[in-house]
Amino acid sequence: MPGEFELIRRYFDCAGLNQHSPSVVLGIGDDCAILDLPAEQRLCFSMDSLVAGVHFPAAADPALIARRALAVNLSDLAAMGASPLCFTLGLTLPEASDEWLQAFSAGLAAEAAAHGVSLVGGDTTLGPLSITLQVQGLLPRGGALRRDGAREGELVIVSGTLGDAAAALDLLEQPAAALTPNRQQLLERYYRPQPRLELGQALLKIGAGCAIDISDGLLADLGHILERSCVGARIDLGALPLSAALRAECPERALERALNGGDDYELCFTLAEPLWQQHRESLCAWVACTPIGRIGRAPGLTDAQGAPLVASGYQHFRGE
Amino acid sequence: MPGEFELIRRYFDCAGLNQHSPSVVLGIGDDCAILDLPAEQRLCFSMDSLVAGVHFPAAADPALIARRALAVNLSDLAAMGASPLCFTLGLTLPEASDEWLQAFSAGLAAEAAAHGVSLVGGDTTLGPLSITLQVQGLLPRGGALRRDGAREGELVIVSGTLGDAAAALDLLEQPAAALTPNRQQLLERYYRPQPRLELGQALLKIGAGCAIDISDGLLADLGHILERSCVGARIDLGALPLSAALRAECPERALERALNGGDDYELCFTLAEPLWQQHRESLCAWVACTPIGRIGRAPGLTDAQGAPLVASGYQHFRGE
Repeated sequence: MPGEFELIRRYFDCAGLNQHSPSVVLGIGDDCAILDLPAEQRLCFSMDSLVAGVHFPAAADPALIARRALAVNLSDLAAMGASPLCFTLGLTLPEASDEWLQAFSAGLAAEAAAHGVSLVGGDTTLGPLSITLQVQGLLPRGGALRRDGAREGELVIVSGTLGDAAAALDLLEQPAAALTPNRQQLLERYYRPQPRLELGQALLKIGAGCAIDISDGLLADLGHILERSCVGARIDLGALPLSAALRAECPERALERALNGGDDYELCFTLAEPLWQQHRESLCAWVACTPIGRIGRAPGLTDAQGAPLVASGYQHFRGE
Repeated sequence: MPGEFELIRRYFDCAGLNQHSPSVVLGIGDDCAILDLPAEQRLCFSMDSLVAGVHFPAAADPALIARRALAVNLSDLAAMGASPLCFTLGLTLPEASDEWLQAFSAGLAAEAAAHGVSLVGGDTTLGPLSITLQVQGLLPRGGALRRDGAREGELVIVSGTLGDAAAALDLLEQPAAALTPNRQQLLERYYRPQPRLELGQALLKIGAGCAIDISDGLLADLGHILERSCVGARIDLGALPLSAALRAECPERALERALNGGDDYELCFTLAEPLWQQHRESLCAWVACTPIGRIGRAPGLTDAQGAPLVASGYQHFRGE
């Protein structure tokens, strides 16, 4: 088995992961990494931890764990409108298995290459399996899609379809279910979330000021926007974008999954109606976007008829 | 018990931790934190993970765990000559105990205040107890204390005294030992490492180019400098700075602890002799610094008589 330093050299300080952008002055191998930001850019960063037995089964495919961990972390950059630059990795492992590390490193390199980010540092230690990532990205000075940026009268819009990843989790609990194309598609949505980076950057460019990524469920995450922005919203439940696979696989629970299911990592954003009319075509070129409601002055979240909608999205520790 | 969001609000988005420097545009509460760096400054960052049962006993005082985690992470900034700015916290907890969180948060706030850093984001999840921190700091453009910066003929110098923390670990394995002032002093060195931030910044200012912090043992960490700088070094074992407490408590193993004991978090740096002569007084005003050897062209690390010195510092995974 390799020691800690050899392990880093072999699996993480390698060609697939250490091809840096010019902004990275120093990467893996020193006490710190160093970035030199382009003029007029700000730094934007987010940390996510994924723990075996909580966020993924310990026996899951290491390549999928790596890809999902990085994609989920990049999704936070997407939700700010930032361009990804580099990331750090805190990896805690019960043992240094070459087979596991090989697959993990390859999955990480594939996801990193897909989004143009490099690995610049981190820490590798013994312990229960868990992965903590921090992505760093760039934002033009002055702009950002913030949770406190929603304004009265703006449309509430979501990218892609909702509830698919939650339906996939249902499927994983009944592993005997035959793997139909619909089910395959739902599982793919859970295992391979797509950070909506291009959409986020496009939103920022056209003047949008508010977004969040849907990790805990639409109602919970939209709720964060409403709370931070001191506004409310009405949602047209009939307008929610549901995939054909979701409708076919769980017709009775599709709406509930779309409202409260986490792990889709789609963006929920707000936009003044004229901006939406002007740019809908260019935005939808990245991923289909669907208006589902409107921001109002009165606090709270209701359906189109004014009935309150209550979030039941996942929170760690709640109800203990 | 508080839910995840309430927990963050109560213990981490609080006055002791969220008083930001003007460079922090956005802290806790959005998808990302945002920094706006002063002109002519670079960003410098490092990630460290501490795992219960590996880096600290699960039952250890939460305030001490928090202080030590942040101090150890800040020590990486010190080793680059950087000024600390802010940090992110990935906290994985088996349960949300108010008592534990209260103590942890208070310890973290005390250490953060001592070094002028604020908490700007992170992730809190269920799982086996572990703490991952990433500190962000500032470096003037163009300068940094790097592991690859040692040059032939320079002095090898260390701050403070070596081996104390390793001796403390010996003491912790015999908890029946009476707590003499000497032992108290050694334990304090282990529990409360002092990041040598002022010394690192002073070194950078006077034109030094190379440092590392001693986390894995002098021989192992100096070895990283030699490897990265493609040089060797001779060390005068008689010159190693040993505390009176270390000499008194383990007279037979003092030298071994100083050479291979980790966890001291002193700086090991190299400096041209004229610079040392010129600035020794001002440097030692921060913390006593002791020349212990000299960089040479021939690779390898030897004592003054030329006998090879072999590192046995701790590495995760080695020997499995």
